[in-house]
Amino acid sequence: LAPAGGEGLKSFFEPEVVAIIGASNEPGKVGNTIFNNFLRANFKGEVYPVNPKYNLLFERKCYSSVKEIPKPIDLAVIAVPAPIVSQVMKDCAEKRVRAAIIVSGGFKETGSEGARLEKEVAAIAKSGSVRVIGPNCIGVYNPETNVDTMFLPEEKLQRPPKGSIALLSQSGAFMGTILDWAAYEGLGISKAVSYGNECDVDLIDLIEFLADDSHTRVIAVYVEGIERGQKFIRVLKEATTKKPVVAIKAGRSTRGKAAVLSHTGSLAGSDVLYRMAFKQTGVLRVDDFEEMLDLSKAFALQPPATGDHVLIITDGGGAGVMAVDACEHYGLTVPELNAKLQAELKQHFPPYCSTHNPIDLTGDVDNQRYRIALEKAFLGYRGVDSAIVILLVQAPSLTVEVVDIVRNINCKSMRPMVACCMGGEYSAKIAKEVERRGVPSYPTPERAARAIWALTKYGQWKLKNA
Amino acid sequence: LAPAGGEGLKSFFEPEVVAIIGASNEPGKVGNTIFNNFLRANFKGEVYPVNPKYNLLFERKCYSSVKEIPKPIDLAVIAVPAPIVSQVMKDCAEKRVRAAIIVSGGFKETGSEGARLEKEVAAIAKSGSVRVIGPNCIGVYNPETNVDTMFLPEEKLQRPPKGSIALLSQSGAFMGTILDWAAYEGLGISKAVSYGNECDVDLIDLIEFLADDSHTRVIAVYVEGIERGQKFIRVLKEATTKKPVVAIKAGRSTRGKAAVLSHTGSLAGSDVLYRMAFKQTGVLRVDDFEEMLDLSKAFALQPPATGDHVLIITDGGGAGVMAVDACEHYGLTVPELNAKLQAELKQHFPPYCSTHNPIDLTGDVDNQRYRIALEKAFLGYRGVDSAIVILLVQAPSLTVEVVDIVRNINCKSMRPMVACCMGGEYSAKIAKEVERRGVPSYPTPERAARAIWALTKYGQWKLKNA
Repeated sequence: LAPAGGEGLKSFFEPEVVAIIGASNEPGKVGNTIFNNFLRANFKGEVYPVNPKYNLLFERKCYSSVKEIPKPIDLAVIAVPAPIVSQVMKDCAEKRVRAAIIVSGGFKETGSEGARLEKEVAAIAKSGSVRVIGPNCIGVYNPETNVDTMFLPEEKLQRPPKGSIALLSQSGAFMGTILDWAAYEGLGISKAVSYGNECDVDLIDLIEFLADDSHTRVIAVYVEGIERGQKFIRVLKEATTKKPVVAIKAGRSTRGKAAVLSHTGSLAGSDVLYRMAFKQTGVLRVDDFEEMLDLSKAFALQPPATGDHVLIITDGGGAGVMAVDACEHYGLTVPELNAKLQAELKQHFPPYCSTHNPIDLTGDVDNQRYRIALEKAFLGYRGVDSAIVILLVQAPSLTVEVVDIVRNINCKSMRPMVACCMGGEYSAKIAKEVERRGVPSYPTPERAARAIWALTKYGQWKLKNA
Repeated sequence: LAPAGGEGLKSFFEPEVVAIIGASNEPGKVGNTIFNNFLRANFKGEVYPVNPKYNLLFERKCYSSVKEIPKPIDLAVIAVPAPIVSQVMKDCAEKRVRAAIIVSGGFKETGSEGARLEKEVAAIAKSGSVRVIGPNCIGVYNPETNVDTMFLPEEKLQRPPKGSIALLSQSGAFMGTILDWAAYEGLGISKAVSYGNECDVDLIDLIEFLADDSHTRVIAVYVEGIERGQKFIRVLKEATTKKPVVAIKAGRSTRGKAAVLSHTGSLAGSDVLYRMAFKQTGVLRVDDFEEMLDLSKAFALQPPATGDHVLIITDGGGAGVMAVDACEHYGLTVPELNAKLQAELKQHFPPYCSTHNPIDLTGDVDNQRYRIALEKAFLGYRGVDSAIVILLVQAPSLTVEVVDIVRNINCKSMRPMVACCMGGEYSAKIAKEVERRGVPSYPTPERAARAIWALTKYGQWKLKNA
């Protein structure tokens, strides 16, 4: 019997044998797109089409029922109309399929008849120990094993590369948007799950599973409503001792809550309660998509900070001032540097450079000034816990090699560092180079400071709770 | 005699005859880059090189002094070392040059000797009625006339196209960054000025001038410190009755103020006073670069809103909820739609679509559903003052033609509308198409709501003060 809770979810992510029930050769059909995903992505295991309409599909034998497949099935992907899902699930239960993703809609979200049907399907699954994700979802994407049930058109939904950010969302639309965005930004994903109506596996199970997943360094969640409140708090508290959890909880406002109700039929609940729950469990709550990816990127690439003292290095005074303002806004400290360090810096820099914090290397900066500032004031100085390195790469004497200097100091220092590359096309290119070297980059001092805030806040949480 | 204040600045932006003093044929020299800017950008007037070292430069006669040029000079660009600027300015004064941009550094920003030199230069200019921008700046960019003194390397600083956003910044580094960013985003600029040490023309003069500039629809300002406080308030109050002013005032925080001091030598002053001044004058204060461009884009493309009631249309429930949350956060109202309108919408939409506000057209949306929603609930409905149109273009049946529907309704409605296109490469492409049709687009519901907030806030200000 498959264990309850977060255990036993492995078959969803690392199946060896997969059946696509409702596979089709008609372009545009969900069962066609999903089968093609598995073929195109070069899925490492075996994949079997199931559909009584065909004998042959994708140049391979097509089965009329999952029961006929001459192998044990780890994962069944179910893409058939709602009314026949019960029969399909009976077959899965008899076959002792370990896990099933029901992507079909037409259940709880459509009203009471759909809800009855959903309960029936869930009961059948339970009787056969089949764990279920869905219905009414776009399922699972795992770039490690190439499991990919997300059936949005390929040109509209690019797949992000392998990485260490796990994404969870009830909503398929949200998942599609954020995956496409992550792909565009080059952010690496460990696992993504759109879990829909939660007839069996729910958000809590998924967080429990991902907390122990070695490919995942940060869990990012979009949530509208949560049931099982006590369990939720217990699981989250446990998860955040292992890795950071970043969450968007929509429906903060009065009208927003009404909108949630008409969207998913679930009660958004009092926002005060959610705020308390997140605070109590160390979950970092964010307000929008951009912030979610900004913080996830920071956690994926950098260690948490062990204290709140931030060093700022810049080659533009104005950007430095804005970073200081933002740090103070987030409750971080931008400490003055000690006299000895400043005297040392003064020996290396022209007199018009500022050796206070922010260190201002000014517009005629070259790579070496960044190297010296980073070595003396970050690597060799214990008065700061993290660094924001602002690179206004418009400076004429600054070259792309500065990114290797930043990377080297970051690696040696064992303390978190983020970059801020502001500007246009050239800056965006440099930002990509910085990130390729493991240092997250942001287009404004404000967003860079917010990332350091998150690394600091989580660091403090871990110190108290790990 | 040139008039004081904002009048008489025309020669900086629309000169017919320009002298580049310190022109050079050595690549990398400021006087070389600036002369090349004028050649490359196809400046419509005449441009003369001045440098006693050469007889011929850029295949034309090079003059040893501005006085020798056989024409009246509208604008002299001065790119010579600080110690000889006084002599050069004497020549300009004798020649009765109307306007001079001193890009050279080495003045007030370097200490007391530099400050003395700057005063001397300013006095000479005044004696000859030469209006001066600078020193210590990168000067003026006007894509209308192709005046372009910004001497940062071309590949690091792309030039934005013609448009209606005016940018003002003391700092050259800031100006370089924001122009490059604007170019990358395709935002059109009317005029950009990095005004440096303000030895004559200051921020107040420039705002006064731009308030009456017919090419400018919004003035965006980065400012660290302001002198002439009473005049500043009077000029701003007058300017905002004509067009919106968006400002970043850096140095909010205690440490930030110290950083301003070491950056420009000017006192940032009490932030409370600035906050009061901005409030009193209707200036919209923003926190970072991204917000500055977000709001400027909204004002450049859309009219202000006459009330705070926002319609939200979406094809993803979650994004709709987030937009509602954000609107309420900004003090906007997301009103319920009246029963008659909802009944009408219900006739056209499948039962699972929500006809409340936000209108949720759901994931199987097609272009026609957007058309109907926009026609009935925005164009034909007086209960809302502005609209946020969320386009999750991942939806399989939605095509690029939806952007023309959005544009048509926007044109006919005479009320402000912004779009929110979230996602990756495909969404970014659609966002560009939307913006090409005059509807500003943002990558998150949060930023779209903030733009509507700004349009609403300015609309309310104008109603009270125009």
